[in-house]
Amino acid sequence: MLMVAWPPPSDTKHFWRIIVSNANQTTVIQYVLARLKEEGVGDIFGVPGDYVYPVLDGILADPDIEWRGNCNELNAGYAADGYSRIRGLGVFACTYGSELGAHLALAGSYGESTTTLMLTGFPSTQQQASGQVFHHMLGNHDYDLFNKMAEPLSAAHAIITAENCVTEFERVLAAMKYHKRPGVLAFQFDDVHKPLASTEIPADIPLRNPVSDPEALAEAVDHIVDELSSAKTVGAVAGIAVQRKKLRVETEALLNATGIPYATPFQDKTALYETHDGFMGTWCGKFGNLPVEEYLLSCDKVLAFGYELHYFNAGFFTTGLDFANRMIDIRDHSVRIGETVYDHVEMKDVLQALTTRLPKWDGLNAPSKLTPFTEAGGSGDDPISTGFPFYKRLEQFLKPDDILVIDPSSPVLAGSFVNMPEGVDYISQALAASIGFGTPAALGAAVAAPERRVVMLGGEGAHQLTAQEIGQFYKFGVKPVFIIINNDGYLVERYTCKDPESSFNDLPKWQYHKLPEVFGCEDWYCARVETTGDMDAALDKVNSGEQAAYLELICDRYDMPPMSEAMFNLTRPKFGQTITWDEWKSEFDKGHNIATL
Amino acid sequence: MLMVAWPPPSDTKHFWRIIVSNANQTTVIQYVLARLKEEGVGDIFGVPGDYVYPVLDGILADPDIEWRGNCNELNAGYAADGYSRIRGLGVFACTYGSELGAHLALAGSYGESTTTLMLTGFPSTQQQASGQVFHHMLGNHDYDLFNKMAEPLSAAHAIITAENCVTEFERVLAAMKYHKRPGVLAFQFDDVHKPLASTEIPADIPLRNPVSDPEALAEAVDHIVDELSSAKTVGAVAGIAVQRKKLRVETEALLNATGIPYATPFQDKTALYETHDGFMGTWCGKFGNLPVEEYLLSCDKVLAFGYELHYFNAGFFTTGLDFANRMIDIRDHSVRIGETVYDHVEMKDVLQALTTRLPKWDGLNAPSKLTPFTEAGGSGDDPISTGFPFYKRLEQFLKPDDILVIDPSSPVLAGSFVNMPEGVDYISQALAASIGFGTPAALGAAVAAPERRVVMLGGEGAHQLTAQEIGQFYKFGVKPVFIIINNDGYLVERYTCKDPESSFNDLPKWQYHKLPEVFGCEDWYCARVETTGDMDAALDKVNSGEQAAYLELICDRYDMPPMSEAMFNLTRPKFGQTITWDEWKSEFDKGHNIATL
Repeated sequence: MLMVAWPPPSDTKHFWRIIVSNANQTTVIQYVLARLKEEGVGDIFGVPGDYVYPVLDGILADPDIEWRGNCNELNAGYAADGYSRIRGLGVFACTYGSELGAHLALAGSYGESTTTLMLTGFPSTQQQASGQVFHHMLGNHDYDLFNKMAEPLSAAHAIITAENCVTEFERVLAAMKYHKRPGVLAFQFDDVHKPLASTEIPADIPLRNPVSDPEALAEAVDHIVDELSSAKTVGAVAGIAVQRKKLRVETEALLNATGIPYATPFQDKTALYETHDGFMGTWCGKFGNLPVEEYLLSCDKVLAFGYELHYFNAGFFTTGLDFANRMIDIRDHSVRIGETVYDHVEMKDVLQALTTRLPKWDGLNAPSKLTPFTEAGGSGDDPISTGFPFYKRLEQFLKPDDILVIDPSSPVLAGSFVNMPEGVDYISQALAASIGFGTPAALGAAVAAPERRVVMLGGEGAHQLTAQEIGQFYKFGVKPVFIIINNDGYLVERYTCKDPESSFNDLPKWQYHKLPEVFGCEDWYCARVETTGDMDAALDKVNSGEQAAYLELICDRYDMPPMSEAMFNLTRPKFGQTITWDEWKSEFDKGHNIATL
Repeated sequence: MLMVAWPPPSDTKHFWRIIVSNANQTTVIQYVLARLKEEGVGDIFGVPGDYVYPVLDGILADPDIEWRGNCNELNAGYAADGYSRIRGLGVFACTYGSELGAHLALAGSYGESTTTLMLTGFPSTQQQASGQVFHHMLGNHDYDLFNKMAEPLSAAHAIITAENCVTEFERVLAAMKYHKRPGVLAFQFDDVHKPLASTEIPADIPLRNPVSDPEALAEAVDHIVDELSSAKTVGAVAGIAVQRKKLRVETEALLNATGIPYATPFQDKTALYETHDGFMGTWCGKFGNLPVEEYLLSCDKVLAFGYELHYFNAGFFTTGLDFANRMIDIRDHSVRIGETVYDHVEMKDVLQALTTRLPKWDGLNAPSKLTPFTEAGGSGDDPISTGFPFYKRLEQFLKPDDILVIDPSSPVLAGSFVNMPEGVDYISQALAASIGFGTPAALGAAVAAPERRVVMLGGEGAHQLTAQEIGQFYKFGVKPVFIIINNDGYLVERYTCKDPESSFNDLPKWQYHKLPEVFGCEDWYCARVETTGDMDAALDKVNSGEQAAYLELICDRYDMPPMSEAMFNLTRPKFGQTITWDEWKSEFDKGHNIATL
């Protein structure tokens, strides 16, 4: 047992009292908020708590930042993630200790390369000096434990004081932007409203203004030009870094100048908008849009912009692409060609150089804007099918500039193949794949762009994790469209586990379409929809108006999109049985006989 | 960029296929479940996911363990915590990566000294060997990152394989029980259904069977007896270790034999049942039940059983007790007297030895079974007051053997002073103090003891964090009583922040009493209650039947229990102003003039 002083130092008990010594100088929180506004932040999500009061007081005192309270910390983190997808940076605040509730959201942001910033409270200097144990602690005396725990989930983290504020804030923000990762700032309680010790940004903040090494850049570009000089067939893959790094213009300029067709991997949908002439479709190995896979396999070289190689982005490892020898890997700050890596080479510089250096390819026989969803089909009393009929309707339902959020649940597998109108941003979470991300992320996106329509599509099992956030849409005056697929259980689990009828796939039977009313949303159009005809009428009604909507689509227990069905056939384990890779491919081909998928 | 083999090893893609090589031998999961049953576990909470399928399949295959699915990982962790409060061990399962969603629950268990065990999935040996990035990962290759992150939140954690299962399971469980802390077991996917490499429990599992060092025990007991020999006035403090270590019988025997009166600190309520003759009341320094504080200050010596010194347990640091010189600190595995510490001394042995060695004190002028709630008051159309009127009614409402769960929200401050009938267990979360703990914890407690009535009391702001778990009560066939105080905002925040009307204290306006219906609960008695008369009628109706119930009590925006009001007067900061400890005490006395509080 640690011996502590008793009684504690005289000021320990009123740690929440703050001395503002000079109101005319910029304070810690004023500086941070001013910088966040420069980065495009106009809203901060979160959950209040006493350690973080000074931060919240600062937010409320700023007329140009809106406080957007959430039901819990996880939802706040997801909302900030959704906001960051649209604005480039999303921020949420929560109190000391309770910040652990948002760690799953930080992990999601990390995997999705989004810059989500968590602001938390931190014990005062008096509290720390007392050696006492306060609430929200674990009972030990590691005041900085929670901040340290954020280490693997963030590009950088810091405990902010009046002395270090400028340097540490800029260090964390620069690292977040450089790595496209979350950051964490814990604000020492008594320093939040103190004037800054210095307002000058040091010249040597690491990663703050990355520039290409001219020699490495020249060598890398030469090498790429050389590699492509003999390539008859060329393709490109646009990874999410293009959107995250705000390089859509530069990337499109390169593609326009060279005529190189491109695909977007599963996780990276809408990295470039899908109405571009060169867009082939979503690439997911042999799992879907097979002509895209075939075209890329036929290429002598494939240019990749920020492509991440993992389970989903490799079509569940079904792609046959020879990454090592065919892919020219242009990353945020480096280029890899075969075993040669050029560091200190910025993607923007490479894109711009290649635009002037590369020739134009003509007559490349690439597919264009592939969609597997050929016919809507069904009508009247037909049961709702979330195969082709629903997804074709979704393609027709979407309007330019919509934001489509798909909860990582059964619709994500088919939804990533839906062709998008101009300007549609697609938001999901392929890698971290945490069910429940969708609802709060949609909230964040809606707040980020209140002039755009947000459509949130998801399965009801995933929805249950975070559904209580629905009330916030109404509270914040945004009007989403929810489409919830209710098939009475965790459908992805049903088609991937040993026994689909395992009781762990069963859910409490909610009346989903009544959720908005109970959560306080007035004047929403809410409906429980059971037939194709009613679905058509409901989608028409939503699309012809401006009303917020919540459609609960009742589907058969095993109704699923064709891609999900393929995955089901391929991957549902037969307990105690093992198959080889060749058998797997053969089984895949059997179960997956729609050539365009 | 890490270079990885491509294509991946042939078995990487079907990591979920398992070979059971010998069905006649005990498998990993069979061993773990058998051991958990020996520890009193009959239910496992959680959320399914593919990495954890083999674990879940094992659970479903065991006829003596029920799967209890939750809406999300945080709720699952809280439910397991609630279960552990009643059964001594609570278990939940969730999938790899998503386990981060439960870290806040682990932190709560850590602070509350509960043994909550998280079972998670872990990539297969094939996946690990492939070096590939799979879903639920961060995009890097640290397969064991999440397991390592649980380090500070657990007594021990392990990755379980067929080779290490027995040793590692026993090591983790022993550490959990020794330290009264959570544990984490991640199950390597392909090993879950393999036969154990060995079924023998090694003799040298650390911490497994702690025994007192005879010499240290004798010295410690002699020292205590010597200290108390000249003590004219003695008191005791029963910490939660008494309940967690199942030492109620031994502690009561000591108190009966010696006549020493005892109090329970704020966090430790019902460590001993409150109908015991020697029970003085809840001790919370000068914050409440002042005669308890006065009696303890008057004692020459105070025996403490597992007392933890922190913010709440020291009455927000208002107690004047001279811990260093007056308290004899009997802890789980040690005794501290002044600056002397005796290690390797088990609390049970000390209790039993003292019972035979100490004299009986007569004529100690201690208070008995203090309650600040003297009069119920109010009737008819009177607005509902959550001051004395409500809490006196709560005392009258509770029945023997009820389980009272109070969400860490405004009612926790007054609720901890409510006098409990025989056998009532009180569950809250004072130290970690995470709002939203209550609803899932109540679920866990109800599942742990379906024959007992669970009353869950909380504020509506806290309720919003985890309210979706209500549907599980109906699904699992348990019948709780919810009492939700709706005062239109975060009340604790209103009375502790700078400006009570700060917009961060506002909430979406839910129709709380309709939640059970929407979450699928049939035949519940649900009511929105606005007057004292209606509250009396509703409480009577609940108490005269067996129906599950959900009462939404509509209270004035600033209606609060007297203890909360005192805290409000004392601690609400006046921005830019600071006061001394003496001023604080003076202000306390002014604002806090109810002598019995």
